[in-house]
Amino acid sequence: MEKNDRLAEQNRGFFRAKKLLVLNVLSSPGSGKTTFIRETAVQLAGRLRVGVIVGDLATDNDAARLRTAGIPVVQITTGTVCHLDADMIAKACAQVDLDALDVLVIENVGNLVCPADYDLGEDLRVVLLSVTEGEDKPLKYPPMFHSANVAVVTKCDMAAAAGFDRSLALANLQRASHHARIFELSAKTGDGMKPWLDFLAAQRAAVKRKS
Amino acid sequence: MEKNDRLAEQNRGFFRAKKLLVLNVLSSPGSGKTTFIRETAVQLAGRLRVGVIVGDLATDNDAARLRTAGIPVVQITTGTVCHLDADMIAKACAQVDLDALDVLVIENVGNLVCPADYDLGEDLRVVLLSVTEGEDKPLKYPPMFHSANVAVVTKCDMAAAAGFDRSLALANLQRASHHARIFELSAKTGDGMKPWLDFLAAQRAAVKRKS
Repeated sequence: MEKNDRLAEQNRGFFRAKKLLVLNVLSSPGSGKTTFIRETAVQLAGRLRVGVIVGDLATDNDAARLRTAGIPVVQITTGTVCHLDADMIAKACAQVDLDALDVLVIENVGNLVCPADYDLGEDLRVVLLSVTEGEDKPLKYPPMFHSANVAVVTKCDMAAAAGFDRSLALANLQRASHHARIFELSAKTGDGMKPWLDFLAAQRAAVKRKS
Repeated sequence: MEKNDRLAEQNRGFFRAKKLLVLNVLSSPGSGKTTFIRETAVQLAGRLRVGVIVGDLATDNDAARLRTAGIPVVQITTGTVCHLDADMIAKACAQVDLDALDVLVIENVGNLVCPADYDLGEDLRVVLLSVTEGEDKPLKYPPMFHSANVAVVTKCDMAAAAGFDRSLALANLQRASHHARIFELSAKTGDGMKPWLDFLAAQRAAVKRKS
């Protein structure tokens, strides 16, 4: 773990020099990470250039879905490994033209437990909670939600069908991720995307000023 | 891992002597494990006596939900550990009156990766896939789906709202879990529960004959 932390700092320095805003996107399997990232990249086009590194145990389905939308993407296939680590990210970066990007999004393996322990050198850790998963997930997976800089409630278009208790979920998020910025949206319908995109643009501008 | 495998065999022998059918229920966070287990236990009442061991990183929310339905339940809180292991199960069993049960259901930590490696001594490994998670999860988490004896498609009442492609999901399940028995149901509406309950009753009868 110490080795990972050192490599993550190396990545962080490298990303800073490249003036990149780097996001580590985490969630359960099936919370909508790929659709969320795709819509983010597509809707930022013309404003910010977004590239993606995507991790999965197997298949390159997610990379293929992103590539069809014209997004530069590198797939990491982890085999049986339950998380991405800083070394995998450093190696994957060699396959992307980082100078052609403003934002690098890392789509982690779908897992609310293990990836929480691995710093990748990101600027922001973004944790997704879909409305179909149940309101108590932030309390049941404390390390992950506690480490989030941003919490995004996804699939809000399905809230009624899922019987989602919004105020309970927000209260749980505020408790587990009390320092996190919270967004609620549906990448599918586009509702709620604008505040998220404006937030990213502001974050990227701050990174650029600092580097 | 070898130590876990030995302890798991010990559990298996112990469960056989007790004439118990033991299920290890696995899925992503939020696939509906607790509701599925609660409805299974409630609907089997009078026919089979069901007890539950439930694992979570934190909170005893799931145990509380099961207990309100009158189900005997032991909560294991794993802290930061991403899976249950055979030793945790042996210790939890000391807190249940196994002689008063026919079926013991172990609700594992919500995680489609790590728990796949840990035999608990169960008779059947039951993996859930909810319709909101996306049809390709069986291909993206091969060790888990490959090790399943039973695959259950859950939350079928939400299939239309989620735009669920049933035939694609079933094809992927048949590919990744080709030896698994597949059920499709909604624990919320009760649709599809009967074949599952009849299957469990037959499995328990077979266990009883063998012990």
